[in-house]
Amino acid sequence: MNDLITLSAVELNGLYVNLQEKYEGYITQKLKLDMSRGKPSPEQLDLSMGMLDLLKSDDNLKSADGMDCRNYGGLDGIPEAKELFAHILEVSPKEVIIGGSSSLSMMHDTVLRLLLHGAGENEIPWGKLPTVKFLCPSPGYDRHFAICEQFNIEMVIINMLKDGPDMEQVEKLVSEDESIKGMWCVPKYSNPDGITYSDEVVDRLASMKTKARDFRIIWDDAYTLHHLNNTPDKLKNMLATCKAAGNPDRVLMFTSTSKISFSGSGVAAMSASENNLNFFRKQMAIQSIGPDKINQLRHVRFFKNLDVIQEHMKKHAAIIKPKFDVVLDILDTELSGTQIASWNKPNGGYFISLNTLDNCAKAVVSMAAEAGVTLTKAGATFPYGRDPHDKNIRIAPSYPSLTELRTAIEILCLCVQMVSIKKLLAEGNNN
Amino acid sequence: MNDLITLSAVELNGLYVNLQEKYEGYITQKLKLDMSRGKPSPEQLDLSMGMLDLLKSDDNLKSADGMDCRNYGGLDGIPEAKELFAHILEVSPKEVIIGGSSSLSMMHDTVLRLLLHGAGENEIPWGKLPTVKFLCPSPGYDRHFAICEQFNIEMVIINMLKDGPDMEQVEKLVSEDESIKGMWCVPKYSNPDGITYSDEVVDRLASMKTKARDFRIIWDDAYTLHHLNNTPDKLKNMLATCKAAGNPDRVLMFTSTSKISFSGSGVAAMSASENNLNFFRKQMAIQSIGPDKINQLRHVRFFKNLDVIQEHMKKHAAIIKPKFDVVLDILDTELSGTQIASWNKPNGGYFISLNTLDNCAKAVVSMAAEAGVTLTKAGATFPYGRDPHDKNIRIAPSYPSLTELRTAIEILCLCVQMVSIKKLLAEGNNN
Repeated sequence: MNDLITLSAVELNGLYVNLQEKYEGYITQKLKLDMSRGKPSPEQLDLSMGMLDLLKSDDNLKSADGMDCRNYGGLDGIPEAKELFAHILEVSPKEVIIGGSSSLSMMHDTVLRLLLHGAGENEIPWGKLPTVKFLCPSPGYDRHFAICEQFNIEMVIINMLKDGPDMEQVEKLVSEDESIKGMWCVPKYSNPDGITYSDEVVDRLASMKTKARDFRIIWDDAYTLHHLNNTPDKLKNMLATCKAAGNPDRVLMFTSTSKISFSGSGVAAMSASENNLNFFRKQMAIQSIGPDKINQLRHVRFFKNLDVIQEHMKKHAAIIKPKFDVVLDILDTELSGTQIASWNKPNGGYFISLNTLDNCAKAVVSMAAEAGVTLTKAGATFPYGRDPHDKNIRIAPSYPSLTELRTAIEILCLCVQMVSIKKLLAEGNNN
Repeated sequence: MNDLITLSAVELNGLYVNLQEKYEGYITQKLKLDMSRGKPSPEQLDLSMGMLDLLKSDDNLKSADGMDCRNYGGLDGIPEAKELFAHILEVSPKEVIIGGSSSLSMMHDTVLRLLLHGAGENEIPWGKLPTVKFLCPSPGYDRHFAICEQFNIEMVIINMLKDGPDMEQVEKLVSEDESIKGMWCVPKYSNPDGITYSDEVVDRLASMKTKARDFRIIWDDAYTLHHLNNTPDKLKNMLATCKAAGNPDRVLMFTSTSKISFSGSGVAAMSASENNLNFFRKQMAIQSIGPDKINQLRHVRFFKNLDVIQEHMKKHAAIIKPKFDVVLDILDTELSGTQIASWNKPNGGYFISLNTLDNCAKAVVSMAAEAGVTLTKAGATFPYGRDPHDKNIRIAPSYPSLTELRTAIEILCLCVQMVSIKKLLAEGNNN
């Protein structure tokens, strides 16, 4: 494609007429394509159906420590589930608490506990302070930001660089401002950029000096096993790094099988120092007698160990990878060289992050919607739903079929071009 | 048995020596009998094992409205689960929200929402008020009280009468004190008394004038289908009564299948006015993408409708009833006529509530523990774990076998007699 920035107004107008014709062709098709959320496709969910045959009426539902998984008890999970997640997160089983089916709920409840009870026995509950701030590497995950908004935690945007959050910015802020109590991180195949934090970033996060002594990092390792190809990213172990840096209580790590087994019916877990977990357990005991142990058993008996899960994840990749390829191919064909858009090529995760020219994302998402393509709301990847440059669009390729995806991305590219041309013409720099 | 109150000191001493001998016989047996919690027995859990065979790898896991239950979505439950719980609670499906596996967690989170966000869009969050009080009919459920204690909600003891909480006391307090914002109720087969609220009590709770306009009753209908015999109690529909009384938003009802299917792996639900539910849904959407829909489907396909559940509950009763009978028989043989203890004979639920002479319960529970019988901690059935008369002991007969139960209750009766005799002798009224 041509570099649109250098085209004359006449050329741009001519191009626009062509694109407009194609766009109107799509309008008449009354399409209905949803690419708004990072949901697995039915084919991916089929991969775990064997799990349903595993526990039968004549099976023994005892856990490794002899607990009847059908009865009350087991506040923080059965031993074999802890062990499995310990392998996934590269920690000790003693550093694992198993939750219900949602790591989002675990993170929500954890933030709430920090607000209500503080970060430890002798710490002030954050909710009693006049201001509490969280650092929010952005673009990021809208549901993280929604938790902060819900509880009046002020969000501070941190720029995402190629190897993770801008650490200069982070280190300066946390060293100066005591009201900065927390930070959201999706450290591997980040949502939506697909970036994995470099070892240096992990080291600096673990060892940086923070003015707040009860500073906590919510480490949402949602995509830790979700590789797309044979050159997966490697993330340095954050809990081990924090311990080595003398800050063992700094990180609270979360993951789940939501995009491994069944979304919404998986098993979630958190990992942190034993000190942190002991503190949280006391509060958990008030909220619950314990999460669903039968579902834990079902997962452990199906997945057995990390090797089996990794093989399972290759099957997921075999389904998702072609979808990412379609998106990247079309973006390449339609937009590369135009200077009006840039995007990432992740090794894993669930998203492709597309950046348009400034002030174009909202218009693009709205134009695509008119042609029947639902994208994640523009701005959603930033705190308060406000993208300061209005340029980031999150593409979630996993759910639609390849055919639907092709059409949807072609429409998206059309919209990016048309909105950009309008902008260029309005700015009048093209002569 | 003789009326101990009227025995002479010499007679009491003689009796004590006999009892002491029996007690020491038990000590040498080094028993280990746990009657501390209301847990179903393995035989009861076996009743639902067929549920595990229901969803298989080649099954369609779509809900009634076409949702793929294996994927994200469905914040408040699938339609068929709402319908089933609507029948259980005698409400409309629109008045039902399905939760995860724990109604305790739903109640905990609901109280927290009321503290953080208030009882409606324009209401003051209770947590912003200097004092918040809950009425606590007592003896009651320790986990309810633990929630209040956790969040600094002041608990006010309400006496339990034969037909429910003392309504004179309740009406007076709520009409005078605006800081009374809530009330805990286990309205059917109450924990631990096994009392079902009379129609008059339900009417008065629904229609009483409260100084706090955002007063809420947490209606924990945990034992709604848990009858022990063919003369079950009937509870008047509280949501309908509140609506009729012009207070549709007053009640928040909860139930679950924890003691119907699997404890900890069941399905929980809440019911309230649509107005209340709409308000809570907004906050729930921040905490979760939705509870486990596969488990909902499993339950709905197994239980089908209310009739099937009711038949299923008869099988539970057939297992539990003989256990209640053993306890009641032994209490009758050992303690009736002694004037040192009284107890209830419930038509359902999970507990027998035993009342000793004042200031004896702690000593009895501790003596029983020394002989290897673990009972619910004395005081646990009252706010802050403090029974003002130190006389209530909760007996949970469901879990132990009949043989274990017989031994445990014989030991319990021995302890009640010995502690009572010591008390009577110390008081010196027996000449």
